[in-house]
Amino acid sequence: MPHSVAILGASGYTGAELVRLIATHPDLEIAALSADRKAGQSMGEVFPHLRHLDLPSLVRIDEIDFASVDLVFCALPHATSQEVISSLPRNVRIVDLSADFRLRAAADYEKWYGRAHSAMDLQAEAVYGLTEFYRDEIRTARLVAGTGCNAATGQYALRPLIEGGLIDLDDIVIDLKTGVSGAGRSLKENLLHAELSEGTHGYGIGGIHRHLGEFDQEFSALAGRPVEVQFTPHLIPANRGILGTVYVKGEAQAIHSALAERYAAEPFVIVLPMGEAPSTRHVRGSNFVHLGVVGDRRDGRAIVLAALDNLTKGSSGQALQNANLMLELEETAGLMMAPVFP
Amino acid sequence: MPHSVAILGASGYTGAELVRLIATHPDLEIAALSADRKAGQSMGEVFPHLRHLDLPSLVRIDEIDFASVDLVFCALPHATSQEVISSLPRNVRIVDLSADFRLRAAADYEKWYGRAHSAMDLQAEAVYGLTEFYRDEIRTARLVAGTGCNAATGQYALRPLIEGGLIDLDDIVIDLKTGVSGAGRSLKENLLHAELSEGTHGYGIGGIHRHLGEFDQEFSALAGRPVEVQFTPHLIPANRGILGTVYVKGEAQAIHSALAERYAAEPFVIVLPMGEAPSTRHVRGSNFVHLGVVGDRRDGRAIVLAALDNLTKGSSGQALQNANLMLELEETAGLMMAPVFP
Amino acid sequence: MPHSVAILGASGYTGAELVRLIATHPDLEIAALSADRKAGQSMGEVFPHLRHLDLPSLVRIDEIDFASVDLVFCALPHATSQEVISSLPRNVRIVDLSADFRLRAAADYEKWYGRAHSAMDLQAEAVYGLTEFYRDEIRTARLVAGTGCNAATGQYALRPLIEGGLIDLDDIVIDLKTGVSGAGRSLKENLLHAELSEGTHGYGIGGIHRHLGEFDQEFSALAGRPVEVQFTPHLIPANRGILGTVYVKGEAQAIHSALAERYAAEPFVIVLPMGEAPSTRHVRGSNFVHLGVVGDRRDGRAIVLAALDNLTKGSSGQALQNANLMLELEETAGLMMAPVFP
Amino acid sequence: MPHSVAILGASGYTGAELVRLIATHPDLEIAALSADRKAGQSMGEVFPHLRHLDLPSLVRIDEIDFASVDLVFCALPHATSQEVISSLPRNVRIVDLSADFRLRAAADYEKWYGRAHSAMDLQAEAVYGLTEFYRDEIRTARLVAGTGCNAATGQYALRPLIEGGLIDLDDIVIDLKTGVSGAGRSLKENLLHAELSEGTHGYGIGGIHRHLGEFDQEFSALAGRPVEVQFTPHLIPANRGILGTVYVKGEAQAIHSALAERYAAEPFVIVLPMGEAPSTRHVRGSNFVHLGVVGDRRDGRAIVLAALDNLTKGSSGQALQNANLMLELEETAGLMMAPVFP
Repeated sequence: MPHSVAILGASGYTGAELVRLIATHPDLEIAALSADRKAGQSMGEVFPHLRHLDLPSLVRIDEIDFASVDLVFCALPHATSQEVISSLPRNVRIVDLSADFRLRAAADYEKWYGRAHSAMDLQAEAVYGLTEFYRDEIRTARLVAGTGCNAATGQYALRPLIEGGLIDLDDIVIDLKTGVSGAGRSLKENLLHAELSEGTHGYGIGGIHRHLGEFDQEFSALAGRPVEVQFTPHLIPANRGILGTVYVKGEAQAIHSALAERYAAEPFVIVLPMGEAPSTRHVRGSNFVHLGVVGDRRDGRAIVLAALDNLTKGSSGQALQNANLMLELEETAGLMMAPVFP
Repeated sequence: MPHSVAILGASGYTGAELVRLIATHPDLEIAALSADRKAGQSMGEVFPHLRHLDLPSLVRIDEIDFASVDLVFCALPHATSQEVISSLPRNVRIVDLSADFRLRAAADYEKWYGRAHSAMDLQAEAVYGLTEFYRDEIRTARLVAGTGCNAATGQYALRPLIEGGLIDLDDIVIDLKTGVSGAGRSLKENLLHAELSEGTHGYGIGGIHRHLGEFDQEFSALAGRPVEVQFTPHLIPANRGILGTVYVKGEAQAIHSALAERYAAEPFVIVLPMGEAPSTRHVRGSNFVHLGVVGDRRDGRAIVLAALDNLTKGSSGQALQNANLMLELEETAGLMMAPVFP
Repeated sequence: MPHSVAILGASGYTGAELVRLIATHPDLEIAALSADRKAGQSMGEVFPHLRHLDLPSLVRIDEIDFASVDLVFCALPHATSQEVISSLPRNVRIVDLSADFRLRAAADYEKWYGRAHSAMDLQAEAVYGLTEFYRDEIRTARLVAGTGCNAATGQYALRPLIEGGLIDLDDIVIDLKTGVSGAGRSLKENLLHAELSEGTHGYGIGGIHRHLGEFDQEFSALAGRPVEVQFTPHLIPANRGILGTVYVKGEAQAIHSALAERYAAEPFVIVLPMGEAPSTRHVRGSNFVHLGVVGDRRDGRAIVLAALDNLTKGSSGQALQNANLMLELEETAGLMMAPVFP
Repeated sequence: MPHSVAILGASGYTGAELVRLIATHPDLEIAALSADRKAGQSMGEVFPHLRHLDLPSLVRIDEIDFASVDLVFCALPHATSQEVISSLPRNVRIVDLSADFRLRAAADYEKWYGRAHSAMDLQAEAVYGLTEFYRDEIRTARLVAGTGCNAATGQYALRPLIEGGLIDLDDIVIDLKTGVSGAGRSLKENLLHAELSEGTHGYGIGGIHRHLGEFDQEFSALAGRPVEVQFTPHLIPANRGILGTVYVKGEAQAIHSALAERYAAEPFVIVLPMGEAPSTRHVRGSNFVHLGVVGDRRDGRAIVLAALDNLTKGSSGQALQNANLMLELEETAGLMMAPVFP
């Protein structure tokens, strides 16, 4: 019998992506879809690419009967998310795609999100959702906090290197190029086609991007000392895809070996042969991560490149992978579709 | 036990798209992949987005043992295709994606493709591959000829109208906008990003595009008299997707009803509510067709809009749908993935 | 001594385009720039591509001293435009880029714009701004009404053919592909990069697009009888550029000759050799129009293709060309820059 | 009387860009255009966006009478360029856009370009063409070597900082994002729209990109000691534009001041207010460079961002600026057009 799931915030891109993925999932059934402002509309009206599916209409969250729901995907904005999740019955398991439960310390949340956290009790039971590194905790968690898409990209490149003591912790630069869907369906001038296409620019640079909170938390915990990376995201004219170019001081060959070994058994993380560079085009629409390692003409310096689809592996695909674990399903169920190229 | 298939011409876009679709197909197994000039390479080298798959390496066609192959997808250029298919053993069933077996009359082939056909005996047994209209013949065919992607688009819009006698047969205009992947991986200046992006132009216009051969053949047969449409394709800066804007003289409401009724039971053809216009974005990467009907301020004129993904429903998805029928599998197997949006 | 001009509505795309063009104009000086909501900001803050220019800061319209202004470019939304222009002193000459003064009959304005016109006295003195066809009237006009960008495209293709009696007036189809900047800087979901890129769709179809008002007025006047064209615009993922594919019944060769003759002396309208199709890429950022004529396999049918840049020749370039005439300057001053390709 | 110029290699993008710029230049006249393989064609056939211009047809180089030519723009591939320039009469002054005369040491040329230099005598008189830093030498040079477009981008960001001793010379990272026109009109799979659009990837990384030769030469000379930067270019789906994100160790405020001061009198180099990030969109089609400086949360680290149009300031615009100096014309003649946005 399929498990019953609800998606809260189904009118955004990550909500729609969840529906896309679950549409061919053998063991999940969508019981409810919420979208407060678009309640009453059908999903096919809001997202015509989902017209062929037989889906429940969009409703307000308070219209959902959670008694018959096994798991909730919460694709709401941060701050809203913590309120809503606080009100859910305890029987429901939750994968949250917002930023609300990623940071373990109340002070960190306040620092990066500019407001106090109102549900620190829930935070205490939340598990950080980077599947490949928290798999066991995720299996038994009631609440899993999906990672930031940029934060996931950087961590795939760096965690094994920090754990292995392979790089200089004081000189890590993450230069990131990201597609526009990561910004969601929000109406801003700089997200218009006329303003975004045919160019690129950096944004949120200078040590102020919120995903730094995740980098700091995770890398410092791994290293057992404070680690502060330099992180510079750029918007590129593509809808899906993040490429992280990570500059580290360490031996390229050792770094490549460490990554290859660490991810050898992972179904979704592929380490390219030494010297090859990944492309976001080659993971588009899929749950795969491609990692590449290239040296420099100077010894002791290396570049790790990581490519993933921000809406899939960076968000909704990760969420589904975690849900599979929580529901004791095949971890890869619904997620093995190949990337769409060209 | 899965059926064993081979893909000839696997280094092109339609070949790669077949691999993408078959990757999650429950009943097919790829036994061989050919690519003459790239023989010896792995598929992951030629198409890094398929790296995660365990696939046979690319070989020359003469290296394939067809004895153990149930069905061959032939994704070779026209002219080459007829030669290769002529040499295949009779036990093998074939879905050809080229133009070689679409036109029943030798004279038509010569007219549109500028050379004599060398395998008219095979042509005699070929079935035209527009699934929804040749389903029964396809089931039992040994050789199915995949349709042109533009030709498919126009036919979804027009066949039921011609059959129903709903439109003026002398005044049909098909204005088509197509993405660039339909031109394949060929190296031409006008397919470079620098020359194609950020603009549009018509090509092959003035009654010379080869897909007119299919329109003429199919529409004339349906009408029982010669029908010559006006057909003007345009290249737009998108990789996937064809939008046909079809101008007809007829009553819009009757046209909508005819289309809605004709396609009501079809799993992949969706008729939008009267007055709504489809978008190629909403079928991207999927096997779905979206059809819309809009009237005009003047009675007796209507516009039928048809959107599909040229690489999927327009080519490799259609091929797989036909293969499913030929192998007595579920017709929709491997094809129910939702479109990728955004 | 340069003429002094003001641009009202300088924070939109057509306002910025005017500044771009006037920046290298030898005889014009920008005395004032208005933008009500952004008053107080510098133009370089609102449009960083204009940072290198020494421009007046944005002000509210009521802050402008029109006594020293020779000519006003009014790049405001329709309805607002008629109010503002009514309040300008009589000494000022005006090029309006809105839709407010394009339609001569009050009933037509009300029909297409859904509200009564409040300045029909001004309408009476307005000259329709399609330079090549109203040049003499424009020279002496106080108020020139810039045409719609789509309306201009269709008229370049069709006016000489209607005047020459070369085509069937009852069977004209204008299938138009337009870039997104024509929609302005408005914040709508379907203008987001994530939703607009990589695809196409029709909009405003079925005889409801407002530019039909202009087509009806102009073509009917030329023909001396009512002419109603069929007009279907499509949005394509490009920022600038309109391609009109115009289907007519007439002899292609005669049509080509008529266009070539009519535009032979025009500095900005280029008729390509018979059979060649224009591309929007080849007029991008310039004031040129490229026209092509292609026949059909059936006699008596032809396609006229017209390409222009909607922000330049379709709007701000046309406005400047008209201003040059009004101020007795060289008509081409500031407008001879070559298109930007690639 | 205008100066007479010839453009060798006019069928490539930099050649076409030179024609675009010279089209409105008050003091230059194009006497000859060469393109060996396309000799006999008109420029309008090869580049339809230049159809409106009255230009000489394309000829072979040996058909040009250089006696009446004041200055030659040589837009040929490297290696070819040195051969051709060697054969030009001594009266002709030359701006070379290839890589052939950028590197002063024969060994450096051989190292980075993989072949011996055959015209080191000419190299001895060549001046490196980064206008703002070699202005006086350029004025009197017979041969000016245009810089690499990536090399120019990095140098605008870094030269004043190295000269000022403001940064750690051993820890400079240049992460560069570049549009596709920099690769020229060459026919390669990875430059096809279908393969390039909608994604990004690094290329030529790991200390192997040829523009490192220029960085090494120029930065080492400035510093008086060997300087080796880390340089990683990425291809983004845009036609024009380079964004360099340069990571340095130094005080951001001091860096900003040094850049602002150094470029205060430069007509084409604009330093944005502290903390603002430039965008390639805001320099498109123009000769301007936008520079931004952003600090980091950790003291002593800064990011310098540089944006320019690779075809204009990065190549043909620079060439024209240098030609203006060589011919004692206004340095900015033909180059003050504003960027094209959107």
